[in-house]
Amino acid sequence: MTVFKELRAVFGTDIIVHEEASANNRGAIAKYSHDQVGDERYWQEPAAIVFPTSTEQVSKLMQWANTTGTPVTPRGAGSGLAGAAIPVAGGVVCSFEKMDRILEIDADNLMVVVEPGVVTNRLDEALKGHGLFFAGYPMSEDICFVGGNVAENAGGGRAVKYGTTSAYVQGAEVVTPTGQVLNLGGKRLKDVTGYNLLQLFVGSEGTLGMFTKLIIRVVPRPTARGVFFGAYPTPKAATDCIVDLKRRLADGPSAIEFIDGDTARQTNERLPKAERTELPANAGAFLLVEFDAADTATVELLLAGAKDLVQAHGGSVEASGTDETAIDRAWRLRKQVPWWVKRAAGAAHSLEDVVVPPSAIPELVGVVEGLRTKYAVPIALFGHAGDGNFHVTPMKTEAMNLEDWDQTAPDLLHELYQEVVQLGGTISGEHGIGRKRTKHLPVALSDAERQTMRSIKTALDPNNVLNPGVIFS
Amino acid sequence: MTVFKELRAVFGTDIIVHEEASANNRGAIAKYSHDQVGDERYWQEPAAIVFPTSTEQVSKLMQWANTTGTPVTPRGAGSGLAGAAIPVAGGVVCSFEKMDRILEIDADNLMVVVEPGVVTNRLDEALKGHGLFFAGYPMSEDICFVGGNVAENAGGGRAVKYGTTSAYVQGAEVVTPTGQVLNLGGKRLKDVTGYNLLQLFVGSEGTLGMFTKLIIRVVPRPTARGVFFGAYPTPKAATDCIVDLKRRLADGPSAIEFIDGDTARQTNERLPKAERTELPANAGAFLLVEFDAADTATVELLLAGAKDLVQAHGGSVEASGTDETAIDRAWRLRKQVPWWVKRAAGAAHSLEDVVVPPSAIPELVGVVEGLRTKYAVPIALFGHAGDGNFHVTPMKTEAMNLEDWDQTAPDLLHELYQEVVQLGGTISGEHGIGRKRTKHLPVALSDAERQTMRSIKTALDPNNVLNPGVIFS
Repeated sequence: MTVFKELRAVFGTDIIVHEEASANNRGAIAKYSHDQVGDERYWQEPAAIVFPTSTEQVSKLMQWANTTGTPVTPRGAGSGLAGAAIPVAGGVVCSFEKMDRILEIDADNLMVVVEPGVVTNRLDEALKGHGLFFAGYPMSEDICFVGGNVAENAGGGRAVKYGTTSAYVQGAEVVTPTGQVLNLGGKRLKDVTGYNLLQLFVGSEGTLGMFTKLIIRVVPRPTARGVFFGAYPTPKAATDCIVDLKRRLADGPSAIEFIDGDTARQTNERLPKAERTELPANAGAFLLVEFDAADTATVELLLAGAKDLVQAHGGSVEASGTDETAIDRAWRLRKQVPWWVKRAAGAAHSLEDVVVPPSAIPELVGVVEGLRTKYAVPIALFGHAGDGNFHVTPMKTEAMNLEDWDQTAPDLLHELYQEVVQLGGTISGEHGIGRKRTKHLPVALSDAERQTMRSIKTALDPNNVLNPGVIFS
Repeated sequence: MTVFKELRAVFGTDIIVHEEASANNRGAIAKYSHDQVGDERYWQEPAAIVFPTSTEQVSKLMQWANTTGTPVTPRGAGSGLAGAAIPVAGGVVCSFEKMDRILEIDADNLMVVVEPGVVTNRLDEALKGHGLFFAGYPMSEDICFVGGNVAENAGGGRAVKYGTTSAYVQGAEVVTPTGQVLNLGGKRLKDVTGYNLLQLFVGSEGTLGMFTKLIIRVVPRPTARGVFFGAYPTPKAATDCIVDLKRRLADGPSAIEFIDGDTARQTNERLPKAERTELPANAGAFLLVEFDAADTATVELLLAGAKDLVQAHGGSVEASGTDETAIDRAWRLRKQVPWWVKRAAGAAHSLEDVVVPPSAIPELVGVVEGLRTKYAVPIALFGHAGDGNFHVTPMKTEAMNLEDWDQTAPDLLHELYQEVVQLGGTISGEHGIGRKRTKHLPVALSDAERQTMRSIKTALDPNNVLNPGVIFS
């Protein structure tokens, strides 16, 4: 296609054009038509995919896109959960998988410099040898790219102690929608020289700019960890215990993850026998509690304090351990939950990530129980409970037909979002608005708030070419 | 004046109009013509001052200003050091001194809700009773307002452990330049619902909006502290020790403050005898090192580890203590330094706050020594060394005439800024650009970076009525 002639001159062989694709390439194109949102109605194949290897190429792409009015959708690993990397408007997908270098590990300043396409776990492996740790990682660390984590301001299982990705972003090279290259922040620890553009780009879901280089703060690696499951008679007992775990322990847990009883048991049963955790059959909810520290003695002490609190709340302590096997097994169960949901409900489920203030966590559980009854659908409840960030996940039953689900789900979600906002929370704590939640944004943000955001989008992207349709419909 | 008729209807008796002011009020007006920048050439009296007591009044003020094209300058305590609160363009000063309520101390969520005019120390006093601590405070905590701290993203003596003000801002009510009221963030710990407008407003120096309410995160109050001074033969020895203090101690100091030998001694000698610290006469530099923890035994242990490092770097340990008297005395000396500079040099000095990556701290000392020789002016060197944030302070000598100073100072500063940027740092770490550094901004930020910032300013403040002339000249 002549329309891509200019791009071909920039990208050489690092471009796939849909119309020219061979049978071989069509499979590749399909991969770039979706992320981890299961609902195929969001999926869309792009007209072309480019694979930049340099900042200059990304800049030329955006100059071309801005001039021709062609939509560009940035893409990391495609592990997102809100549709932000789906090229709904067609146009070009810009995949960062070839910009995957770890450029520098600066142990003196506790900073690393990376390209956006570095897989999170690969960065972690590289840091291990230096006794360092990238604390702002999400739970998809096996596959996700650092650039995507930053674009979405991801959070993960240990954010309750370490905070989310944004807390670790110290600097970035950014290509704007018009192709300008900005260098924001750096290895300095303080900076009030002009506006905080850096944190405006962080979490902007690829709508304001694309990261081509990132400066990430790292911390000394905790060398000891320990975990256990608290098993509680009811979800309420578990969530009351969370409030106490946060209030009563001076050195707080590195993780407090919630899984409702049925979801935990059903996930566990689908694991290979050797990988299962022994869980009591009648518990209403579980908390995965983890501590980390510089040595195992300290971890044992911290675990003991937490176990006392669990017992005070009527819970029992299960599967406790400070060895790698115990830690891996506990997290495997937790990480398998969304995959179990996927297998159980197919595409007809909605993995939410609502967040409420810590004190409102018990009330959120009540809201979910009310919605289960009112809408008569199962709702798996799990997630980063210590942060008040829950994966409320309504699922279609086998008995329900798809039309019923399509009618029920939006109402249920709308009511959930309203309740969460009433509790002082918001509709997304870590996955973002993407394309999936644009229509629900007014529940959380007023006209004035959305207009202000839009005015910034327009100021930076006057022709609306970078990831149009994300955040704002 | 009829031009202020509408405002008078909004503010009643909470307005002072310059042209109508009695002899009594003229003194009051003078107060609102400056901040802590000594150079009177920046000073300017406003046409009027308003003292809002409600968000609605602030909104009406901005609707009026936006319609009439009148500049509005927001003002906290006037303790700023870059001229951001000076009404250079005339117009109206909006002083937040009457919006000074602590609205809520929420111990369950570790959050406080305050109006912008709360004096930082008053908040700290209120938190003490709850065992809580606002960690993001600056060193002017006796006088500064929380709203000003947030508007400037202030940093302070303990930022090396706790970070700057921005890390503690969880939510805000903001009035925009056109008078809209936005509610951003909240008591939730995670939020990726739309752009991070909150952190865009934080540190924007009152150019994008005015805070009318703030939600601030607090932490459990450390109940034990301990301090000592390390006295080193040379500034280089002191700064090499900083790098080691940061690298070698797992539980880092809550403060690492640097004072060059002459500055420390001269400040000390001007204190009342009973308040002085005993300092060796020949040391080239001092570090004030502080630790905090939950108990004194832990603090003693941490201090001992740091003292070993000081001695390994050829330093001696002075004035060590864990009691209130020792702590107060150490900080009094440190806090008196800028006042000594002011007395010694009058208005003819420039209190800078450049920042470099931690590993470049020793190089910055070399840069300052070079500038002292080249420009033949004394340069006091002190500040938050652990962060790489230094108050490099060139001072006019008595022998120098004012014209010479006026010619020398801008060149010296320009060269300082260039060197700092070369080292990976930037021109302001905590005081901001204000009106004082606008002309130097291109040293730190490219055309594209400044244009992007300006485009956001224009999007939010199309008529350029809120704090015009700050950040951008």
